[in-house]
Amino acid sequence: MLLKFTKMHGAGNDFVVVDLISQRCRLRSRDIRLLADRHFGVGCDQVLVVEPPGRPEVDFRYRIYNADGSEAEQCGNGARCFARFVRDKQLTSKRIIRVETAGGIIELRVRDKQQVEVDMGAPEFEPERIPLRAATRAASYTVALDGRELELGALSMGNPHAILRVEDVAQAAVDSLGPALERHPDFPQRVNVGFMEVVSEREIRLRVFERGAGETLACGTGACAAVVYGISRGWLQGVVTVHLPGGKLEIAWAGAGHPVVMTGPTAVVFEGSIRI
Amino acid sequence: MLLKFTKMHGAGNDFVVVDLISQRCRLRSRDIRLLADRHFGVGCDQVLVVEPPGRPEVDFRYRIYNADGSEAEQCGNGARCFARFVRDKQLTSKRIIRVETAGGIIELRVRDKQQVEVDMGAPEFEPERIPLRAATRAASYTVALDGRELELGALSMGNPHAILRVEDVAQAAVDSLGPALERHPDFPQRVNVGFMEVVSEREIRLRVFERGAGETLACGTGACAAVVYGISRGWLQGVVTVHLPGGKLEIAWAGAGHPVVMTGPTAVVFEGSIRI
Repeated sequence: MLLKFTKMHGAGNDFVVVDLISQRCRLRSRDIRLLADRHFGVGCDQVLVVEPPGRPEVDFRYRIYNADGSEAEQCGNGARCFARFVRDKQLTSKRIIRVETAGGIIELRVRDKQQVEVDMGAPEFEPERIPLRAATRAASYTVALDGRELELGALSMGNPHAILRVEDVAQAAVDSLGPALERHPDFPQRVNVGFMEVVSEREIRLRVFERGAGETLACGTGACAAVVYGISRGWLQGVVTVHLPGGKLEIAWAGAGHPVVMTGPTAVVFEGSIRI
Repeated sequence: MLLKFTKMHGAGNDFVVVDLISQRCRLRSRDIRLLADRHFGVGCDQVLVVEPPGRPEVDFRYRIYNADGSEAEQCGNGARCFARFVRDKQLTSKRIIRVETAGGIIELRVRDKQQVEVDMGAPEFEPERIPLRAATRAASYTVALDGRELELGALSMGNPHAILRVEDVAQAAVDSLGPALERHPDFPQRVNVGFMEVVSEREIRLRVFERGAGETLACGTGACAAVVYGISRGWLQGVVTVHLPGGKLEIAWAGAGHPVVMTGPTAVVFEGSIRI
C-alpha cells in the first residue's frame, strides 16, 4: 500500500510520523527499518506511530520505534513532534494531550509558536537504579579512567546518564571520553555521557554522547539529566536554557521528587508517501 | 512555495530529484542545502534537477548539486535515476535520452527492469591529467606511505582515482589507507581511493573512499576506474560485475580510447513535497 507520512524534527532529532488512525495498516519490523534508513528509505532517528487509545483515560497510543525496528519507551523530542502532528492533522483540537507509551502515560501541553511542553518524569538518584556501581548515593562520583580520576554526576531519567562539567563544550573530548565512559565497568548497563558548560545560572551548553548512537544533535533526556545535576550542585536554578548542537530546549525542575518539564520546538520538514 | 520531489537511489547512492519543467521555481543554494540535509531537510548525497534543454540537440538539461550547494559535473548513479525519473513522470517516452550536464552532453539508455546504461566517457591515463606526480605513464605506480611502498593504479574518469588490489575487500584498511592516500602529496588534487578484490575475470568486489566524503555505498566513477585498471593489467575482461556495499553495477570497456559503459539499477523510494 501507499503509506502517507510526515517528516519532522525537534532540535534536529528527527522523526518519520505515521498516522495509523486515518490509515489502516500494520507496520512490520522491516517496514520500520525501511522508513528509518537514510539511504534506502526515508531516514530518521525514530519512527513515531499514532494509534487509537487502548484505554479511555488517554487520547492516543504513541509508539516509538528505533531505527533497528525495536520499540523504545521514551523520547521527549519525539513526544513534542507527536503532539504537534495530531493537532496539525486535526486528530484532536486539545492543547493538553494524554498519551499512552510503552513507558507509561505522559501528558503533552501544546504552547504557542509550535513549542510543546513534556513531563519527563522524576529523576532517579539511587546508584542501583541508575545503574551505577557505587556504595552510596552522592552529589557526584569519581570514576577512574586511564589513570585519571573524573568527577561526574550520575542519575537516571528512565535511562542512565553521566554528566561531566567542562570549561568549554566546543573543546570537550566527546569523541574519546564519550565511548570510554559509555562502556566503563562502573556503568553495568552502559551510560549516556553529557558534557556541560555552565554559561550562567540559567543557561548551559551541552553535547551528549548517546549510548549505542554516538554524539547526537539533541538528546532530550540528556538535557534533563544535565540540568538536574546542575541544580543539585547549586550551579543552576529555575528554568534553564540548554543549547544543544541541533537547537535549544528549556528545562525546569522543582527539586527531588518532582518531575522534570522540558519545553522545546517542533518543525515539520516535509510530507511524503512511500509504497510498503 | 510547495515543491514536489522524488527520493531515489542507485545502488544506495541517493538523490532528491526535482522537476523544474512542470514546476516553475528557482532553487537557491540554501534550498539545495536544505533538500540535502539528512536531519533538517529531506537528505541525500546529491540533488538532481531536471530543466528544459538549453540547445536543440538534447532532451533535457541535467543539473547535479552536492550537499553543500556546489554544482557537480558528473554523477553516473544520478544519471540513471534521472533517466528513470523523466520517463516515470512522462516528461519523455524516449528510451535513449540525451542530456546536457556541466561536464558535457551524455547519452542515457533505458533498458529493462529499471536498469539504465550510461556512457561515462573515456578514461584518462596521462599522469598530469589525473593529476599524479609521476615522471611517465605506467601500468601501475609505487607510492611511499609511512615507510611502506604501495602498488596502485591511477587514472581519471573526469575525477582522479587510485586503485589498490587487495586479497579480501572486507578486511581492507579502508579507514586508514583511504584518508592517507586521499591527501598523499603524489595526488595534488587529492584522489578517490578504490580497494578491489578480484573474484574472477568478470567479477570484483569494491569499496571506495571518496574524496571529501569518506567511504560511500556506491561510487560509479570508482567502479569504472577499478574495472579499467583491472582490464589494463589483464586481470579482468569483457563485462565485469562490480559488487559495491550498496548494490551491483556492470561495467564494460573496449580498451584505450573507448568510453566506459556503466549499467545499473534505479529505485524510487518515495514521493514528497516540501515548503521552500
